[in-house]
Amino acid sequence: MNSYILTLVISILIPLSLFGEQTKMYKHNLMPVPSKIEFGNDKYRIDSTFIIKISPKNISELNSYATRVLRRLSDRTGLFFVQDFLTEKSNEKSGNLTITATRKGNVVVGEDESYTLSINQKGIQLDAATDLGAFRGLETFLQLLEVDEKGYYFPEVKIEDSPRFKWRGLMIDVSRHFMPIDMIKRNIDGMAAVKMNVLHFHLSDDQGFRVECKSLPKLHELGSDGLYFTHEQIKEIIKYANERGIRVMPEFDIPGHSTSWLTAYPELASAPGPYTIERNWGVFDPTFNPILEETYDFFDKFFKEMSELFNDDYLHIGGDENNGKQWNQNQDIQKFMKENGIKDNHELQSYFNKRLLNILTKYNKKMVGWDEIFQPDMPNNIVIQSWRGQKSLVESAQKGYQGILSNGYYIDLIQSAEFHYLNDPIPSDTPLTPEEQKFILGGETTMWAELVTNETVDSRIWPRTAAIAERFWSNGKIRDVEDMYRRLDRVSFQLEELGLRHNSNYEPMLRRLTNNQDISSLKILTDVIEPVKIYTRHRQGKKYTQQSPYTRIVDAARPESMTARKFNHLVDSFIKENNEEGRLTLREMMLQWVDNHDKLKVIASKSYIIREVLPMSSNLRDLAQTGLQVLDGKMNGRKFSEEWKIEKNKLIEMSKIPYGQTELALINGFEKLFKSVNE
Amino acid sequence: MNSYILTLVISILIPLSLFGEQTKMYKHNLMPVPSKIEFGNDKYRIDSTFIIKISPKNISELNSYATRVLRRLSDRTGLFFVQDFLTEKSNEKSGNLTITATRKGNVVVGEDESYTLSINQKGIQLDAATDLGAFRGLETFLQLLEVDEKGYYFPEVKIEDSPRFKWRGLMIDVSRHFMPIDMIKRNIDGMAAVKMNVLHFHLSDDQGFRVECKSLPKLHELGSDGLYFTHEQIKEIIKYANERGIRVMPEFDIPGHSTSWLTAYPELASAPGPYTIERNWGVFDPTFNPILEETYDFFDKFFKEMSELFNDDYLHIGGDENNGKQWNQNQDIQKFMKENGIKDNHELQSYFNKRLLNILTKYNKKMVGWDEIFQPDMPNNIVIQSWRGQKSLVESAQKGYQGILSNGYYIDLIQSAEFHYLNDPIPSDTPLTPEEQKFILGGETTMWAELVTNETVDSRIWPRTAAIAERFWSNGKIRDVEDMYRRLDRVSFQLEELGLRHNSNYEPMLRRLTNNQDISSLKILTDVIEPVKIYTRHRQGKKYTQQSPYTRIVDAARPESMTARKFNHLVDSFIKENNEEGRLTLREMMLQWVDNHDKLKVIASKSYIIREVLPMSSNLRDLAQTGLQVLDGKMNGRKFSEEWKIEKNKLIEMSKIPYGQTELALINGFEKLFKSVNE
Repeated sequence: MNSYILTLVISILIPLSLFGEQTKMYKHNLMPVPSKIEFGNDKYRIDSTFIIKISPKNISELNSYATRVLRRLSDRTGLFFVQDFLTEKSNEKSGNLTITATRKGNVVVGEDESYTLSINQKGIQLDAATDLGAFRGLETFLQLLEVDEKGYYFPEVKIEDSPRFKWRGLMIDVSRHFMPIDMIKRNIDGMAAVKMNVLHFHLSDDQGFRVECKSLPKLHELGSDGLYFTHEQIKEIIKYANERGIRVMPEFDIPGHSTSWLTAYPELASAPGPYTIERNWGVFDPTFNPILEETYDFFDKFFKEMSELFNDDYLHIGGDENNGKQWNQNQDIQKFMKENGIKDNHELQSYFNKRLLNILTKYNKKMVGWDEIFQPDMPNNIVIQSWRGQKSLVESAQKGYQGILSNGYYIDLIQSAEFHYLNDPIPSDTPLTPEEQKFILGGETTMWAELVTNETVDSRIWPRTAAIAERFWSNGKIRDVEDMYRRLDRVSFQLEELGLRHNSNYEPMLRRLTNNQDISSLKILTDVIEPVKIYTRHRQGKKYTQQSPYTRIVDAARPESMTARKFNHLVDSFIKENNEEGRLTLREMMLQWVDNHDKLKVIASKSYIIREVLPMSSNLRDLAQTGLQVLDGKMNGRKFSEEWKIEKNKLIEMSKIPYGQTELALINGFEKLFKSVNE
Repeated sequence: MNSYILTLVISILIPLSLFGEQTKMYKHNLMPVPSKIEFGNDKYRIDSTFIIKISPKNISELNSYATRVLRRLSDRTGLFFVQDFLTEKSNEKSGNLTITATRKGNVVVGEDESYTLSINQKGIQLDAATDLGAFRGLETFLQLLEVDEKGYYFPEVKIEDSPRFKWRGLMIDVSRHFMPIDMIKRNIDGMAAVKMNVLHFHLSDDQGFRVECKSLPKLHELGSDGLYFTHEQIKEIIKYANERGIRVMPEFDIPGHSTSWLTAYPELASAPGPYTIERNWGVFDPTFNPILEETYDFFDKFFKEMSELFNDDYLHIGGDENNGKQWNQNQDIQKFMKENGIKDNHELQSYFNKRLLNILTKYNKKMVGWDEIFQPDMPNNIVIQSWRGQKSLVESAQKGYQGILSNGYYIDLIQSAEFHYLNDPIPSDTPLTPEEQKFILGGETTMWAELVTNETVDSRIWPRTAAIAERFWSNGKIRDVEDMYRRLDRVSFQLEELGLRHNSNYEPMLRRLTNNQDISSLKILTDVIEPVKIYTRHRQGKKYTQQSPYTRIVDAARPESMTARKFNHLVDSFIKENNEEGRLTLREMMLQWVDNHDKLKVIASKSYIIREVLPMSSNLRDLAQTGLQVLDGKMNGRKFSEEWKIEKNKLIEMSKIPYGQTELALINGFEKLFKSVNE
């Protein structure tokens, strides 16, 4: 085991030890970090004669994947490769990159995704048990591309790699705000790039039912505002995902979260209708009636159709946040509960779930649900997705239920990559035994869509999801946060080539906000602010609905300000070391912020929409002015009075007030800097 | 007529004359310019209580269009409108914007698209004969939005508007490079924003057959690499376009340009197969065999299906660039021609076209084709699309054929907006009589897709197509180029809100080119270069194919450098006026270019792909250094020697050499500046 652990420890900062001396350290850009990795000193150079050879040639998905990789390599390097398409009929005698896969893999939980990748002067060799493993290896291959004055090359390396968890998912909510198929596809590409393998498709909720249902057509006709995926589109998405080794698991959230369903079929609700599609955000009353046989006839028909449409073994029935109000108020339901010895709404939902389980089982689907479906009397062939926390996940694993962790991976809550990255489905201090740990299948990051649109959603998913993907794939001991951020910047850039717009939509949004004026001053401010966190945004006087504008500064602002992160770090080391270089860099940043407010005011005079953040901009100016006093004072040995300290403390507190649902992300740094004059 | 002409003259620079004094001039941002427009002094302010009211309420397309306009207004202003959806059931008592349409329009050639828009302190009134007219008026309405320190408002105005031409098209080629449905939709939105009304869908060519054909499935199965639109997707596109008052006319290019068809059905070719999908660009030999009855059976089946799938009255059969080689070499065809008195290949193609015309007529479609289908013996119920030029358009109009101009609107050829803008389907010196002019239906801009991908195509279409759209819509006397560019900058910005990526893909492309380094130095260079023009790019040693990388600097560079245009203008006025302000601005620009080369060299050392333009970057530095000499010399009264002049002339000539298929767009300005020292 020692050598294995050694590999893990050194995998972040790799000594060039494969064949040469350990003279310099090589920092790789791989994310997720492979299980074993060893670099050498050689470079394998490529030019337009670069050829890929695959054996066997009859796995069409692998041929297509390799062809796309060839195009991506061509797009990055500008090399006009002679090779065009890889097909069954390709007859390359040899390849610069040789790929072997033992067999065609199945896109199912637990399929072999391991691969080995070896690069030396002779060429590049990628070997995998299945095409899925080859897909993962090809993404590693692309991340290894380097460039110097002579051209493009791959470093000498030996990699052995396989995933830690078999379930590595991204949940996309297309109910609250519908997302076009293009958004789903580009995010599938992003998932493949960081080796994720489950698209959890949240297809229904109070605010919209998003799949064509041929047997119950009122669902999409009345429940979707015309915004839904047809059968053909769903098949297209599944094919697209499967060809990248990614499963597509549908979620139909019941018995609560179902206003859109009950808009179409009010007779199945637990209280009299009519219902209309919900436009607001929150938890709502409409709930299916669990005591009607018609309800189960309905779901039999429904799940029959959906089980045929979706090819995955698993089907998610939601089950969360049923508030029970309609059940409590329905006399027939209360009577039914008494007659059948059902003690409370939890037990009643368990009754409902067991009936559904029978239906799903009949159609060969395994049931997945949120925490709430975990009831003592449920059979343990269901899978629990934990949004409530580690505790409930541990409990269900101890009771023999398979589980997936999502608590801590709610990327809609605008938390830092670090926070998500350090959250582990099986933390090192887990109370679970090794046997129990096997019940933890992995994790899923969740993109709830109340506050995002097609324009902003990529910026909420990426790049933070790449850090989470590493948590799901790489060894749990890989936890160097600084190195994660370094690699995340690189992978974020690379994700752009797949059409993801987490970076590229930023400036167009600022352009709209300035009404096509010079965006530089707005960008300087927006670069150092973040949207308010967790659920705060709903609690600041703005009532958000499905139709609200999601085009304000809070929507343009990144979930995590990298400029603020850099600033806060610089302050830390400046306080510690009082270093001249740090002082100069901080000074430059602060001078820019001092100057910025007047410039932004001019822009705001011709763009009313940005006025809401002007008070914050002026706070930033004041903080930066004070920061400059501290920098100078420290150099000149100035004594700062108690009055000064009290006043600046007030400034810090005042600057913590959010404006336009955003907050300054560098308060922490300024606060430390101001306090450091005491020392 | 006088007042009408007056309106035209003043429409670019509008005196505020409606009710108030003519104290200041109001420059509007409308593109295309309406037929009649008169501004007043009042402002109509809007807030979150803004309501749209429509009558009648039963035109669902109009309800949807107005709802989208409401969202766009909300997105721009950040206002949380109370109104959510406009539907048949909406019961607004009054509206801030009241829309009336007399009847539901038909999306056909010549439908009434006129509207009147009146804004004053009482409110906003939009009246149209049809919903199509209301769509056009709503786009004008959105372009009128203004902002001041108090918020958002619309200026007082009276507009009467209707189009000059009834056929205002954009042709998109999805054969050479396939484009996803998302690209088609966002471009349809762009078209609607500038009041265009025909999407000409170039669906087949040598390099790909792009529609599912159920009756002849080998077409899409073998002719498309799997990249084609299904029936469902075609219907989705037609619905999307029609809902915006835009027709969708399909083009199936035959009998030449048909390699992809003949890959699937080689037995219909004029020479023995097999064929494979063409990967190269150019004119190729494969041509349908016009003497086989099977050919017409095939097309009968084909056009029956396509006539049902596409709802437009018109169907385009291409007909261009049949090189005749296969016909010349086929003994049976030669024999057939002799026996039937067919003199040459033109007549043979005419025979083919007449047979097709019978088929199209049977299926209620009118035939459209490129110039080549115009033969003396063709019936004159066909429509000629002129790619060859004004002359052939005039000829066919004189002979009573309806025509559409595309010559001069080939946006793939990287010419200036000015060039396209001044090109008129019926120029003021037209030899056509007013009666003959009626045969000119309008024009179409053509986006041939050899050298574009989904990433770059928007930047080739927009914003230049907006200037062409004005040519098709507005009075022919509107020809102020400077004012066109001013408004084009505005409309280009507004087009971004529809998801068009002509601006937003620029920096991501530079980011990839720099390999995620600081892009500023590459941007300074790329901002002043343009891709080589017309067909030059194919003739500079690079062999482009369907699989080439289209990610180089030439692909990132804009078709028209606005920075270079500004520079060239500044030089003109500086030479004329020797003004200090001009001198200082030019000096600042040149200093930046002098400094830039060393910075770019550093970037290029870590990104090999950009090295191809380094010689041009060094030329730019040398030009700018010389430019500074001239600026200083003119101030100091320096005499420039003949040697200096000869040397600088050489520098100009050397700087005209393209690198990486791009050229410096400011040579003209530098040349004039250097020559000005003689005077």
